[in-house]
Amino acid sequence: MTEDYRREGPRRVGQVKEVTSLANPIVKDIKALSDKKTREETGTFMAEGLKLVIDALELGWKIRTLVYAKAAKGKPLVEQVAAKTVANGGLVLEVSEKVLSSITRRDNPQMVVGIFESRWTRLSDIRPENGQTFVALDRVRDPGNLGTIIRTADAAGASGVILVGECTDPFSLETVRATMGSIFATPLIRASVDEFLSWQKHAGTELVATHLAGAVDYRTVDYSKKPVVILMGNEQSGLPENLAKSATRLVRIPQQGLADSLNLAVATAVMLFEARRHLLKI
Amino acid sequence: MTEDYRREGPRRVGQVKEVTSLANPIVKDIKALSDKKTREETGTFMAEGLKLVIDALELGWKIRTLVYAKAAKGKPLVEQVAAKTVANGGLVLEVSEKVLSSITRRDNPQMVVGIFESRWTRLSDIRPENGQTFVALDRVRDPGNLGTIIRTADAAGASGVILVGECTDPFSLETVRATMGSIFATPLIRASVDEFLSWQKHAGTELVATHLAGAVDYRTVDYSKKPVVILMGNEQSGLPENLAKSATRLVRIPQQGLADSLNLAVATAVMLFEARRHLLKI
Ligand SMILES: [Co+2]
Ligand SMILES: [Co+2]
Repeated sequence: MTEDYRREGPRRVGQVKEVTSLANPIVKDIKALSDKKTREETGTFMAEGLKLVIDALELGWKIRTLVYAKAAKGKPLVEQVAAKTVANGGLVLEVSEKVLSSITRRDNPQMVVGIFESRWTRLSDIRPENGQTFVALDRVRDPGNLGTIIRTADAAGASGVILVGECTDPFSLETVRATMGSIFATPLIRASVDEFLSWQKHAGTELVATHLAGAVDYRTVDYSKKPVVILMGNEQSGLPENLAKSATRLVRIPQQGLADSLNLAVATAVMLFEARRHLLKI
Repeated sequence: MTEDYRREGPRRVGQVKEVTSLANPIVKDIKALSDKKTREETGTFMAEGLKLVIDALELGWKIRTLVYAKAAKGKPLVEQVAAKTVANGGLVLEVSEKVLSSITRRDNPQMVVGIFESRWTRLSDIRPENGQTFVALDRVRDPGNLGTIIRTADAAGASGVILVGECTDPFSLETVRATMGSIFATPLIRASVDEFLSWQKHAGTELVATHLAGAVDYRTVDYSKKPVVILMGNEQSGLPENLAKSATRLVRIPQQGLADSLNLAVATAVMLFEARRHLLKI
C-alpha cells in the first residue's frame, strides 16, 4: 500500500490526495518543518487543529497544504476548509492517523493540520498610536514562553510582539501550539538590537523595561499618555545595559518570597495587564 | 569499574559513596522517582541545583540523599551541604556526569541533586488570616503550569497552594524544576472537592473564582476585607458547577483578541497580583 506522490504523476490542483505511508515525500517535507532552517527556506509553518485553521483562513493567512485524518472526511467544516484550500491553489491531503501522529509528533493528534505561509511585520511599518501596546522581547529562548506571551499579548489586546536579537522561532510547532491560535492574530516583528534602538528613538513611545535595578513600581507609570512598549529581558541574564538605557522607564514588579524572579511569560502578563488596565473592560 | 552498593556491604552512615555505574541500585532507586507511585511510596522527590539544596536545608526540609558530580568535589558550598546531609543521617553520593545526566534526564545536568522528603500541609491546619492569599486549583493537569503557579504564588507572597481533586503531582521533576525553588517555600495542600467545600464553609474567606459566566470585573472585588482564596478551573474544562457555586465572587479577567482564554498560569498570576495589589510594595 505504499504510495509515492511523485510516481503517480501530475494531478489537478486541489485534488484530494490520500496518503498512508510515512515514506511519502510530501509527508517527509511536512515533517522537515520541525527544522527552523526548513521553515525559513520554505517560508511556511504548521498549525494544528480545525478551529485554528478556520480562524487563520478567516484572518487571511495563506494555506499551502491542508492535512486531515480519514476519520474527519465528510465533516462539513473540514470540507469547507478543504474547498477553501483548493480555491487558494493549495494541496489537500487525507492521511492515516499514523501519518498525522508522525507529522505532529503526538500520540493523539488533532484531526486537521494546516501548513501556512509565515508572515513577519516590518518594524519600519510599525508607527505606534496612543492606546496601542507592544511587547518587545530581548533574546527570548524558551518556545513555550514565547507562545504563552503571544497568546497573552493577543488576549490583552496588544498590537504586536517585537523579537529583539536572536530569539527562539515563533513558527516552531511548540510555540505555535502554546499560542492557541493567537499566532494568527498577533503581528510579529523581528529586529536586531540596533534596528530596535534606532526605531524606538523616533517611535514616540513610553518604553517601559523591567529591570532588577528598576526603582520604580510598575504600577506608578502613566500608561495612557503615549503608546507603550513593554521591554522584557531574557530568561537567563535579564536586560543588557544598552537596551536598559534606551528605556524611558525602568520598573520593577514588587515581589516577596524565595524565588529570584517571576517566569518570563508571567512577568510579561503582569506588565501587560497593568499597561492596558485603563483600556480593558469587561 | 562497575560498583554495586549492596555487594560492598554495610557502610557507616554519611560516608561518601562513589558511583559511576548506571546499574548501581541506589542510582536505580533515584531514577525510579520519575514514577509518581515510587515518589508516593517512598515519600521523597528530587530537586536539582546547589542553590535549591542549600535553600531547602535552610528552610528545614529533610534530605535523604545528596548527589554531586565529581567535578563539584571540594567546593566549599558542596562540602557544607554534604556535611549537613551526613549530620542529618543522609547518604552522600559522588557520581560521574553520565550518572547525573541519567538521573536528571538532561544533557547538561546540574552538578548537585538532592532527594528530599516530600511534605504536605493538612487543609485542616489552614486557618486563613486577613492579609493571606491562597490559590486553589481544580484538577490542574500540566506539570509546567503547576510549577509556574507555585513559583508565582511564592513571588506574590501567597500562603499556600491547594490542589483540589485529581491534580498533577507537585513533586514531579518537571514541576519542581518549574518552581525554581519555590516548592520549598510554598505550603502545598491536597483536598478532595468535598473536603475543600466543607473547609471553605468555615474558613471565613473571600472565595474568588474565575469563571466564564463571571459578570464581575476581577479588579472590582475588595481583596482587603477578608483572607482570600483564588479558585481557578482546570486547563480543559474550566470550573465545575459545584465549585463555582461555592465561590463568594465569580469574576472575569477582561480580554480582547482571538484566543479563547489565558494560559492557566498566566490567569492565576494576573489574579494573584490583583488580589495582593494592596500588600505588595517595592
Ligand atoms: Co480572548
Ligand atoms: Co521573589
